[in-house]
Amino acid sequence: MTIVVGYVPRSEGRAALRRAAEEARLRSTRLVVVNSNRGGAHLDQQEAAEHERELAEVRAQLDADGIPHEVRQLVRGLDPADDLIAVAEETAADFIVIGLRRRTPVGKLILGSNAQRILLEAPCPVLAVKAEE
Amino acid sequence: MTIVVGYVPRSEGRAALRRAAEEARLRSTRLVVVNSNRGGAHLDQQEAAEHERELAEVRAQLDADGIPHEVRQLVRGLDPADDLIAVAEETAADFIVIGLRRRTPVGKLILGSNAQRILLEAPCPVLAVKAEE
Repeated sequence: MTIVVGYVPRSEGRAALRRAAEEARLRSTRLVVVNSNRGGAHLDQQEAAEHERELAEVRAQLDADGIPHEVRQLVRGLDPADDLIAVAEETAADFIVIGLRRRTPVGKLILGSNAQRILLEAPCPVLAVKAEE
Repeated sequence: MTIVVGYVPRSEGRAALRRAAEEARLRSTRLVVVNSNRGGAHLDQQEAAEHERELAEVRAQLDADGIPHEVRQLVRGLDPADDLIAVAEETAADFIVIGLRRRTPVGKLILGSNAQRILLEAPCPVLAVKAEE
């Protein structure tokens, strides 16, 4: 049994990770953290270093919490939806956790195209978590 | 702690209920089953009797499984999204489970307006489960 979580270093990614870690602990299942980036022009040096630093913190926190985990940084030119769905299929995931994004500056939540595709196309249930205000 | 599930006597409602019952058992929480109907012209006699029969089966199954539960049949002229969100607020739900609908006859999943509103407006995370083919 596996829980797959889509992680980005933004509030919605952190909210999703926090919830996914709780669920993994509750079920004694492992957690697969997917950090998906299209790569190429979409990923500059500085952004990459920032991601790296945050992912190191994620790993340290999951270690401290005693949650068996795997962090996958995928830069395969795919949309996050495709990467998450592929990992969920490969790991026969019990469910996927995603964070819903707030569109600044009004703070209204939106259902982006990646979230919609994951909800509809994932091979398993999807738990959608809201970013904090 | 409470899990709220939106139930309709169709495959997506049954899939949502099945998953919600598993989650309630896992967490030893109670389950609140919400069967929302706008009422008025939307609810004819025969349909109502059919709903009644299916809800009796739902109750019997949850009893048999030993899951503490409550079945709420709401006919308040509200959209299912409004009813579910109101119950989730009132019960301080841990999360809501909804079923995603397949549009016949092609069998393609859709994200209906109720599902979208629940995902975005619910005060808690939402677990979206797919109807079986």
